[in-house]
Amino acid sequence: MSQYSIAVLAGDGIGPEVMQEANKVLDAVEQKFDVSFNRTAFPVGGYAIDTEGEALPSKTLLGCEQADAILFGSIGGPKWDTLPLEQRPERAALLTLRSHFDLFSNLRPARIYPGLESLSPLREDIAKSGVDVLVVRELTSGIYFGQPKGREGEGEEEFAFDTMRYSKREIRRIAVAAFEAARKRGGKVTSVDKANVLVTSRLWREVTEEVAKDYPDVTLDHIYIDNATMQIMKNPAQFDVMLCSNLFGDIVSDECAMMTGSMGLLPSASMNEDGFGLYEPAGGSAPDIAGMGIANPIAQILSAAMMLRFSMNLTDAADAIEKAVVSTLEAGVLTGELLPPEQRAEAASTSQVGDEIV
Amino acid sequence: MSQYSIAVLAGDGIGPEVMQEANKVLDAVEQKFDVSFNRTAFPVGGYAIDTEGEALPSKTLLGCEQADAILFGSIGGPKWDTLPLEQRPERAALLTLRSHFDLFSNLRPARIYPGLESLSPLREDIAKSGVDVLVVRELTSGIYFGQPKGREGEGEEEFAFDTMRYSKREIRRIAVAAFEAARKRGGKVTSVDKANVLVTSRLWREVTEEVAKDYPDVTLDHIYIDNATMQIMKNPAQFDVMLCSNLFGDIVSDECAMMTGSMGLLPSASMNEDGFGLYEPAGGSAPDIAGMGIANPIAQILSAAMMLRFSMNLTDAADAIEKAVVSTLEAGVLTGELLPPEQRAEAASTSQVGDEIV
Ligand SMILES: CC(C)[C@H](C(=O)O)[C@@H](O)C(=O)O
Ligand SMILES: CC(C)[C@H](C(=O)O)[C@@H](O)C(=O)O
Repeated sequence: MSQYSIAVLAGDGIGPEVMQEANKVLDAVEQKFDVSFNRTAFPVGGYAIDTEGEALPSKTLLGCEQADAILFGSIGGPKWDTLPLEQRPERAALLTLRSHFDLFSNLRPARIYPGLESLSPLREDIAKSGVDVLVVRELTSGIYFGQPKGREGEGEEEFAFDTMRYSKREIRRIAVAAFEAARKRGGKVTSVDKANVLVTSRLWREVTEEVAKDYPDVTLDHIYIDNATMQIMKNPAQFDVMLCSNLFGDIVSDECAMMTGSMGLLPSASMNEDGFGLYEPAGGSAPDIAGMGIANPIAQILSAAMMLRFSMNLTDAADAIEKAVVSTLEAGVLTGELLPPEQRAEAASTSQVGDEIV
Repeated sequence: MSQYSIAVLAGDGIGPEVMQEANKVLDAVEQKFDVSFNRTAFPVGGYAIDTEGEALPSKTLLGCEQADAILFGSIGGPKWDTLPLEQRPERAALLTLRSHFDLFSNLRPARIYPGLESLSPLREDIAKSGVDVLVVRELTSGIYFGQPKGREGEGEEEFAFDTMRYSKREIRRIAVAAFEAARKRGGKVTSVDKANVLVTSRLWREVTEEVAKDYPDVTLDHIYIDNATMQIMKNPAQFDVMLCSNLFGDIVSDECAMMTGSMGLLPSASMNEDGFGLYEPAGGSAPDIAGMGIANPIAQILSAAMMLRFSMNLTDAADAIEKAVVSTLEAGVLTGELLPPEQRAEAASTSQVGDEIV
């Protein structure tokens, strides 16, 4: 029997309650497949600030180092928003984990599920055109981490600066990730840049063109970020894999998530070159509905499925979970935010959705 | 009688034909109001490359220097897309004009006109919620112009870099522009940044907060760029004035333009501290329909109205043009792209729309 160890970082807001459902699903996988998951919970985010004094305690980091993967809930909330930026949950925990484990490859799928088109803020004909995009975002470089960054000067001439920076190596490895993903999907990569203005984007274009030569079965297009935000609205079905730098990927993936109208369904994976990864829902900690048992656990459960697929190579188990999610949606076992207002009284609870998937 | 001189840079694609209609409207203004416009045409863009060897010939630049304002058409097209980046129409002409005249204040209004909601790619209820946004974009600094920019290193470690940079002075003057505009509109500024990651954004936030103190009648909110692209889709009616840095404004203004579904209606103004400005349609040169007499001239005509308002203080004339545009839309004198496919046979031509506005 294969064994894997998972660091479970449930975090804040709805994190703990949706994590409970993901755990149920992992229990079911253990029963159905020849595998066991050794799970250890660690504090992170605002909860860790309150209990341990910092958003990413060293025992949590150590626990992650010893695991095969990190299953992450969500962090942050108004309670910790007044802390100095560097200590806030999002930065102190999330950005640190990304860079500590070199999680450069961030996959964020966004699709509009048949039957759920009316949730999309897009016009019906666009929402029904078959939208299924995978955003592949570089996550450990670019203007997020580029040096120098700082402030200089005095009075009105005081200025602040950030550095956007990419090496060929950094671009190549994320481009490879995008082409590999496209090969298993629609065979099309659209690389997002601002090559008419940024030197970084020109290098980005050069290297993606080079990588494309190794993938004759995949087509490569380039699109400017400003045009990308327009096309996502006008005709999202034209996209298969969107390859983005860190900042542009932040923007594009959120716009794609919103376009689906169902943030509670979207998982994400952040991986390094060794297949180690952090898996988390695309949505936030939703403190306003935390503890009410009404949050949608599907994004968390699909994040667990991505973990099985990418960090453990458990393709069958991952497929099984994803199929169970689709059946659950088709069966109409839905949390309130997926229903029209007048039907919300009959909404399924967080744990009912989890049970149905199990 | 007041006299103004205008440098008319029609450019490429549909530029010349829509400019002709704007000129008709300016003729009508001369007849109705006590004013005369001394107009001189200059080559720019691809047309100037073909006829003069460069996208912004020195006589064009000189002509602009001697004018009270620049009325700009649109530039670029596939013919010039293979030129080295620095020589291409968009960069060589547009970015040079912006920085030469210090046109730091870029105003891009985006509204969904009553009756034209079905053109929007957004869901009907969202498109009908009363969308009227003004994007105020900083246009001469930030990562577009920040130094250093370049490439260094060798092999796979070769890297490229760009610098995002803002001084307090640069932030303050564009923030003031946004607050002034908000005061005359809905009284609300939403400043777009990425203050959880960028040092530049933190200074941006500080300075906008300072400026806000001088405008107790205007409210100020901050939003992250990733969330902004989501909210524009989900609930654009929440926005009045969106204050953006150069890069974020490029993205936000294009997303807002697309959200209206009628790019051919959207003007823009790019101004400096002396009231000198460049006025141009938000859409591109549309080479595919150039010369066919079917392009919508309204964006160009509304750009002329903005010119009268901001560079010449001719408020009555500007109001008159804007009113005439609304009546023309209400009267259903519409170019094809504003009509459902089955009604396009009855579409008005470029010059019919111009005549109606006159
Ligand atoms: C919290 C923030 C720093 C983060 C980012 O910008 O990467 C978030 O928006 C995300 O996309 O995961
Ligand atoms: C052509 C390009 C350099 C330009 C920009 O990015 O500013 C354009 O997209 C715009 O918004 O006017």
